[in-house]
Amino acid sequence: MPEAERISWFPIASRDDLAPETRALFEQLDAKLGFVPNVFVAFAWKGPRFDKWRAHFEDLMQPTPGLGKAEREMISVAVSMRNGCLYCLVAHGFAVRALLKDPVKGDRVTFDYHRAGLGAKHIAMLDYAVKVTEGPASCSEADIEALRAHGFVDSDIWDIAEVAAMFNFTNRLASATGMMPNPEYHAMAR
Amino acid sequence: MPEAERISWFPIASRDDLAPETRALFEQLDAKLGFVPNVFVAFAWKGPRFDKWRAHFEDLMQPTPGLGKAEREMISVAVSMRNGCLYCLVAHGFAVRALLKDPVKGDRVTFDYHRAGLGAKHIAMLDYAVKVTEGPASCSEADIEALRAHGFVDSDIWDIAEVAAMFNFTNRLASATGMMPNPEYHAMAR
Amino acid sequence: MPEAERISWFPIASRDDLAPETRALFEQLDAKLGFVPNVFVAFAWKGPRFDKWRAHFEDLMQPTPGLGKAEREMISVAVSMRNGCLYCLVAHGFAVRALLKDPVKGDRVTFDYHRAGLGAKHIAMLDYAVKVTEGPASCSEADIEALRAHGFVDSDIWDIAEVAAMFNFTNRLASATGMMPNPEYHAMAR
Amino acid sequence: MPEAERISWFPIASRDDLAPETRALFEQLDAKLGFVPNVFVAFAWKGPRFDKWRAHFEDLMQPTPGLGKAEREMISVAVSMRNGCLYCLVAHGFAVRALLKDPVKGDRVTFDYHRAGLGAKHIAMLDYAVKVTEGPASCSEADIEALRAHGFVDSDIWDIAEVAAMFNFTNRLASATGMMPNPEYHAMAR
Amino acid sequence: MPEAERISWFPIASRDDLAPETRALFEQLDAKLGFVPNVFVAFAWKGPRFDKWRAHFEDLMQPTPGLGKAEREMISVAVSMRNGCLYCLVAHGFAVRALLKDPVKGDRVTFDYHRAGLGAKHIAMLDYAVKVTEGPASCSEADIEALRAHGFVDSDIWDIAEVAAMFNFTNRLASATGMMPNPEYHAMAR
Amino acid sequence: MPEAERISWFPIASRDDLAPETRALFEQLDAKLGFVPNVFVAFAWKGPRFDKWRAHFEDLMQPTPGLGKAEREMISVAVSMRNGCLYCLVAHGFAVRALLKDPVKGDRVTFDYHRAGLGAKHIAMLDYAVKVTEGPASCSEADIEALRAHGFVDSDIWDIAEVAAMFNFTNRLASATGMMPNPEYHAMAR
Repeated sequence: MPEAERISWFPIASRDDLAPETRALFEQLDAKLGFVPNVFVAFAWKGPRFDKWRAHFEDLMQPTPGLGKAEREMISVAVSMRNGCLYCLVAHGFAVRALLKDPVKGDRVTFDYHRAGLGAKHIAMLDYAVKVTEGPASCSEADIEALRAHGFVDSDIWDIAEVAAMFNFTNRLASATGMMPNPEYHAMAR
Repeated sequence: MPEAERISWFPIASRDDLAPETRALFEQLDAKLGFVPNVFVAFAWKGPRFDKWRAHFEDLMQPTPGLGKAEREMISVAVSMRNGCLYCLVAHGFAVRALLKDPVKGDRVTFDYHRAGLGAKHIAMLDYAVKVTEGPASCSEADIEALRAHGFVDSDIWDIAEVAAMFNFTNRLASATGMMPNPEYHAMAR
Repeated sequence: MPEAERISWFPIASRDDLAPETRALFEQLDAKLGFVPNVFVAFAWKGPRFDKWRAHFEDLMQPTPGLGKAEREMISVAVSMRNGCLYCLVAHGFAVRALLKDPVKGDRVTFDYHRAGLGAKHIAMLDYAVKVTEGPASCSEADIEALRAHGFVDSDIWDIAEVAAMFNFTNRLASATGMMPNPEYHAMAR
Repeated sequence: MPEAERISWFPIASRDDLAPETRALFEQLDAKLGFVPNVFVAFAWKGPRFDKWRAHFEDLMQPTPGLGKAEREMISVAVSMRNGCLYCLVAHGFAVRALLKDPVKGDRVTFDYHRAGLGAKHIAMLDYAVKVTEGPASCSEADIEALRAHGFVDSDIWDIAEVAAMFNFTNRLASATGMMPNPEYHAMAR
Repeated sequence: MPEAERISWFPIASRDDLAPETRALFEQLDAKLGFVPNVFVAFAWKGPRFDKWRAHFEDLMQPTPGLGKAEREMISVAVSMRNGCLYCLVAHGFAVRALLKDPVKGDRVTFDYHRAGLGAKHIAMLDYAVKVTEGPASCSEADIEALRAHGFVDSDIWDIAEVAAMFNFTNRLASATGMMPNPEYHAMAR
Repeated sequence: MPEAERISWFPIASRDDLAPETRALFEQLDAKLGFVPNVFVAFAWKGPRFDKWRAHFEDLMQPTPGLGKAEREMISVAVSMRNGCLYCLVAHGFAVRALLKDPVKGDRVTFDYHRAGLGAKHIAMLDYAVKVTEGPASCSEADIEALRAHGFVDSDIWDIAEVAAMFNFTNRLASATGMMPNPEYHAMAR
């Protein structure tokens, strides 16, 4: 991939124009990952809006004892597959491979979580995330009770729904604005 | 509607347990509207997460010269109709009636914006919001160019996409958690 | 709404050209409601065809002990929501509010009858009407048996199917011909 | 097919219980066709309702100079194919074969009117009927103008829409009530 | 139908240019049926490719004790109805009529196998073929177990899936290349 | 992945029971790739049927000057993404990466070929393959003319349709029989 690849159909903020904290964040990411995820590069031109979305997003993706980082990322790819979001499938596909420490299983969860050897609890979680994605009005209290029966606590059931809802936001924003995933992701955690 | 109506399938935070700023917000809303919108009542149990989502949401709904409050609310009901979200159709249906200062036109935009007497620019805006909702992967740079040709600037085109994406978040969160719209909305701005 | 609003994409019969009984009907409606429903105004140019459809429609909407006026109107809005018919949602949305004597519940039935606090019998009735609307070929005798188990008699089960079928007719005729609902409906029974 | 085949999931009126005119109609049909179409046999138990529907239906199916019997029946099978209605595909499939005086072309129109050698005007008529069936809310005045450009007059364009709407009624009533087409139809007009 | 009807949107091989075995096959078919099925006429220009496809197809359609010719053809029309394939509905609709030795039942299976008086085992077989057609990724081992419970052996269950898959191939090839069914089929086995 | 992973819901032929040529093929593949593709392992129990399908498949995937190996594989993943076929996405996703000699572009074509930087000719080819997949009955001669205008010759246009049709076969057979892609594919051509 050439370095100058276009990663958004909208203007990209110059790093010099970023708020100091955003610039600091980008420098940290460069140091840690070797690149800044393009969703940040593409969204940063919106200034404080970007920071507010990121604050919400990062709070939501924090693990809890009942719903870890890997679970939250599995939800992200199950939803992104339904919405066909290139950006999120590539970026979060990497995250699932890395968090599961199993590149084959990670790809399988991304392509078809029903054929990835997951247990019944994880399948139920992802089926619910897909229901929230595809037929939100058809959700009912019975869905919540079914997840409780699988051992999820209420706070985590809410988070399954909210993570699913969040990727219905990010999938749409990324797809509508032409965000391209960083090419580095494809080879990571293989 | 009885006062004790259940407005969420999840626990509701007691007002006494809310953070001081959230309690202050609820008191302001009670004073201004006569009630607190149930999305706030239902979401508040998530603590700081609620504040972070609200910060993003309110920033996004701020009007700009090229995309006013009414336009942003029209997008919200067009998206909510596609997702069949009772909560948002009722709450934001009121907002559209109020902002358009025309209860008939507001309801028409909510039910079917193609039959509401809107101009070509508004129709194009809402058709794009529906495309972002129903087929995000099919969006292309040509959609953005078409909106530019209608006179929208890039920053507002991004916002049309982001508002559409946001209601794809809120529609799903509201529908999955059983949020019920405050009964007061139905009679307001009639 | 201006008085001269266009209410059909087809010619409108002059009142002077109507058959005497149609004119009499329109005068009665003017006296009773303050207006003639636009579906009548728009359809009347078809002469005797209009009278024949109306004769069938009005026979079908007559209440029986097991399926009252409110039930028949609830079916009409559940079907109209699936077909996205502005005319019927507004005109029959009013009817549901008025017949239920509860404007909030009426609107909820119109937007999402699963979240309107209806009992299991009414939900089963409306789920069947939606199945008749969305997947008629998938209907089976088991659907009829399930409604019998809810206490519906055969004659009323037929009527649930026929009312659902009828609004699949009217939704399409109204949508295809550009019928606009009378603006008066929006504020009635609030 | 055995004579005692069940032709409805609902009660069938005994011929002795029919109103005299209905009995007379059935006797005429027996004499003319050799059988009474099962839609009549199955619907007759509803008494005057049946007569009212039939009056509307028969008025609507009357040919005009611009929209003949064959055209009206072609619309019926194009709509019935979309709804997968066994009864109407068989009964009206016969009608199309007979009216076109071409059994091969008649079957082709029934299965896929785009591959039946029809002219552009008939294709446009049937595409519109399918649009009225599948996406009524997406119909617009431009559809009507396009049909005018093909030479249809307004009264016939309305009838195209109304015939399409009518078969959306009959397809659903027939499918939901378990109406079986008379076995005789299959071999007729071959 | 005129003899010179166009039966493909692609070139047709002259009989003189066919490989000797293909010419021999066509002569046999002419002798047996009075015509060569147009799928063969239209596909033959691809030379050895045609023979290879036909070898696979004919192997697959061979009856076994547990899955006869009629069953394999019933699968073909159930799949073809879902894909709306004119060619296969006409050609294999004939086959089903002939093999069932019941023209009415054969047509009913073609139009709607749920309303054809089939037994539970055949319905289960066709429901599975439709699931393979419409939602292959949703298939699971439980589907196979359900067919075993109906008495199918594993080798035949595989064949149900493979026949369904095969008609998803032929339906698409026939529809995309403009293959027209031979007019003779319509009147055969009536 | 454990070596003993189950790769089909059907019996697997023992290598000792395979026909000599099939055994020889498997040995060649072991030598060349280090493994035998699971589609072969899973299908081989069907004996000569397997060989006949493979003969057709391999003939079809042979490159021509106008439609190379890479193009044929790009069609395979575009179709497999629509059908959500885990097996084909993984196995042919590898093939696209290898043939394009660009792992990032290969993955992008697999996930969303509209966002992979392909030229207009390749996009038109894949849009047609998707149309053949999703709406085969809507294909028309105009689609063929459009591909000719992009420079494709008739023989290759047929092949685009036939490759698309073939993966509608293999996607369904693989999904319905529970075929699992060899884990080796995931890390190849990265």
